[in-house]
Amino acid sequence: MKRRELLRGAGLAAVATGLAACAPRPEGGAGPAVSGEIRHWKMVTSWPTNFPGLGTGAARLAEMITAASGGRLNVKVYGAAELVPAFEVFDAVSRGTAEMGHAASYYWKGKAAAAPFFCAVPFGLNAQEMNGWLYEGGGLELWRELYAPFGLVPFPAGNTGVQMAGWFRKPIHRLADLKGLKMRIPGLGGEVMARVGATPVNLPGAEIFSSLQSGAIDAAEWVGPYNDLAFGLHRAAKYCYYPGWQEPGPTLECMINQAAWESLPQDLKDIVDACCRAVNDSMLAEYTARNQQALDALVREHGVELRQLPDDVMAALRRASQEVLEEAAAADPMARRVLDSMRAFEARAKAWHAVSEVAYYATRD
Amino acid sequence: MKRRELLRGAGLAAVATGLAACAPRPEGGAGPAVSGEIRHWKMVTSWPTNFPGLGTGAARLAEMITAASGGRLNVKVYGAAELVPAFEVFDAVSRGTAEMGHAASYYWKGKAAAAPFFCAVPFGLNAQEMNGWLYEGGGLELWRELYAPFGLVPFPAGNTGVQMAGWFRKPIHRLADLKGLKMRIPGLGGEVMARVGATPVNLPGAEIFSSLQSGAIDAAEWVGPYNDLAFGLHRAAKYCYYPGWQEPGPTLECMINQAAWESLPQDLKDIVDACCRAVNDSMLAEYTARNQQALDALVREHGVELRQLPDDVMAALRRASQEVLEEAAAADPMARRVLDSMRAFEARAKAWHAVSEVAYYATRD
Repeated sequence: MKRRELLRGAGLAAVATGLAACAPRPEGGAGPAVSGEIRHWKMVTSWPTNFPGLGTGAARLAEMITAASGGRLNVKVYGAAELVPAFEVFDAVSRGTAEMGHAASYYWKGKAAAAPFFCAVPFGLNAQEMNGWLYEGGGLELWRELYAPFGLVPFPAGNTGVQMAGWFRKPIHRLADLKGLKMRIPGLGGEVMARVGATPVNLPGAEIFSSLQSGAIDAAEWVGPYNDLAFGLHRAAKYCYYPGWQEPGPTLECMINQAAWESLPQDLKDIVDACCRAVNDSMLAEYTARNQQALDALVREHGVELRQLPDDVMAALRRASQEVLEEAAAADPMARRVLDSMRAFEARAKAWHAVSEVAYYATRD
Repeated sequence: MKRRELLRGAGLAAVATGLAACAPRPEGGAGPAVSGEIRHWKMVTSWPTNFPGLGTGAARLAEMITAASGGRLNVKVYGAAELVPAFEVFDAVSRGTAEMGHAASYYWKGKAAAAPFFCAVPFGLNAQEMNGWLYEGGGLELWRELYAPFGLVPFPAGNTGVQMAGWFRKPIHRLADLKGLKMRIPGLGGEVMARVGATPVNLPGAEIFSSLQSGAIDAAEWVGPYNDLAFGLHRAAKYCYYPGWQEPGPTLECMINQAAWESLPQDLKDIVDACCRAVNDSMLAEYTARNQQALDALVREHGVELRQLPDDVMAALRRASQEVLEEAAAADPMARRVLDSMRAFEARAKAWHAVSEVAYYATRD
């Protein structure tokens, strides 16, 4: 055997046993076990490629994982419809067509009744509270239990903060003005709108503008100023209402095919976990910074009518929300457990935020 | 040369050139360049070891970096006074005694006048807004410019959320009750208290309880229910006041010795960056969840008097805060730039949060 061949053989042996075979052994101890194997993963998403906030968040997550792993876990992002349609992300990752997905869990209420609770609950937790509940209040454990039968491991991976109530072609003066309205609004918020007389429809983001402009729908909620400006929704409907009672702090999700997840060595699992948490932080910061710039542009440059929903409308939506949540919990044991967990957290969160965030905003502003 | 020696030689060569020498080369391309070299880093902190939230946050950051790097960047945490005193973290990392530190930038106003702005500004940004400003509003660039002459690279790495105004041995009924009070309160908040007639002192966390109990100080702000309960501050002072005007969303910092940072290969830099962002997210979630539990215990089990600061006190503190900030900016060109950047962000943040977070809290609670 020649020297060159021996070297090549040693290199392959090092790959087989992980970097341990290559690493220096200070003080005679064992080196770190880092595998040099290269993996190529697909990430399918429910967002247009590089769509502000959501799509760029997914792209950032893929870039961070690829970079932090030194290219050993190479993640390629596919926008909505590039590999699978926006609303087939769950199935595609479940069956392993893609190893990873980035979406919103309220798109999957047809798969699991409790799924929407992990994204947004009408009149529920805001972003800071969702993170508290998911990471430290038992929420993430329940979410993983819910997704396990589908062979999926979910991670919080982004948040938009409080959204807007939506864009309306006509002003809303009283509750009766919602009756008969055809509105794009997904998740539990859609069920609430149905309860007060509107007709909710779900459409992927990319179809909202044309549907609103053509009059196929009368109203639409999407996200907030940053995203709505990018879609040009202000050119299709004049009235923009707040606050986003239906999505007070929606968590975006990264879901990973369980077999793919389990195939990862521990350090790559830790990298994925850290990067999901990092994007969870970064996306909210991006929305906080960009929403305010976009709001300014919408009002000052585009003459948008920014209005608060009337009190009687909010009261009716609040009552209908409680009914919808209770009925969802009554119909499904897992939804019951999730709602109870969230409600217990929310009760304490309200008490704490009354003397912290709320009291502070009141004295500062 | 025997086979065993050749293998050892090949291993060392692989280390010298990074994992590239070991990695498989799919499709004939180059493998990822991941170095197997092991680094041992020290992280000095301003917190007692494993102190809830702050100390556990620093420990979590060290664990995450160590795990995500597969042990290649092994970070060992030193609590306050274990290697250097709490308030010498900045100098210790600057001179390279430790590669890394976890602290709060308002401890370093004696080193750089603008430093406190990157932690907490009285009546300034809350946690969500700090993250928006730092990551997306130019704040982090200014922070890095400020620390560069000290050979330090800062990262946001944790946030407590809105704090409490503090613990007082006697009730505060009016502004005059603050006059002559000796209060533990660091940073710009301390300067504001001096302006309204109190005497601010700075003490490391571990010394607060005994000083308050002995009467050496009359009042102290530390963090909030989660941490204050752990220190037993309710046993040393009966009255707990809110809201924490002085620290509405303090950012904790990870600082890294610049030469140590530059010695890292790119993948380890990306791991450190991701883990700092991850801990920035996780710590706020921890405070959000634990503060509310601790608040409940303080009020129900320990009979703490939870009170809001009177309006005339808040008005005087607000006026004094504006004076202190303006004077700090007038005296230091960098503080001027930082304050102007922060103020521009804050003006838009207020407009956005008025129709999102604030409007939502009002309709929900």
